Amino acid sequence: MKAKIHITLKQGILDPQGKAIEHALDSLGFKSAANVRVGKYMEVELNEKDKAKAEVEVKQMCEKLLANTIVEEYRYELG
Amino acid sequence: MKAKIHITLKQGILDPQGKAIEHALDSLGFKSAANVRVGKYMEVELNEKDKAKAEVEVKQMCEKLLANTIVEEYRYELG
Repeated sequence: MKAKIHITLKQGILDPQGKAIEHALDSLGFKSAANVRVGKYMEVELNEKDKAKAEVEVKQMCEKLLANTIVEEYRYELG
Repeated sequence: MKAKIHITLKQGILDPQGKAIEHALDSLGFKSAANVRVGKYMEVELNEKDKAKAEVEVKQMCEKLLANTIVEEYRYELG
């Protein structure tokens, strides 16, 4: 089973990396780009057939290691 | 219009960050996790109503700035 995990900054948390990209895009002539937010995307293969168990595991991985839940939020799909 | 962009390493390109996460997960007791691949996820707001034009723009942004097309591939959704 494969987990696709998105980790993004919570609403309201400043995103300096996004701001830098926004400025770079502007300098390159992409004037219509705004509000760039940067996050992480991870794919993890799980040696686990049971979807419910896999879900518990992915949630724990995100809470314990992958996301900093003070400033980030995560979502995942299993398939 | 909002673009959701995924930038991932091409198949076959080594992912040391993914390997590090894999080892960390293993140390934390997540023995079933394997093949971790890490990529970037970006959201960009475009001040552009025309979907075809927005698509051209996002493609150019990826090619010129966001992705390193030698080792990375990108995909996007507009909505």
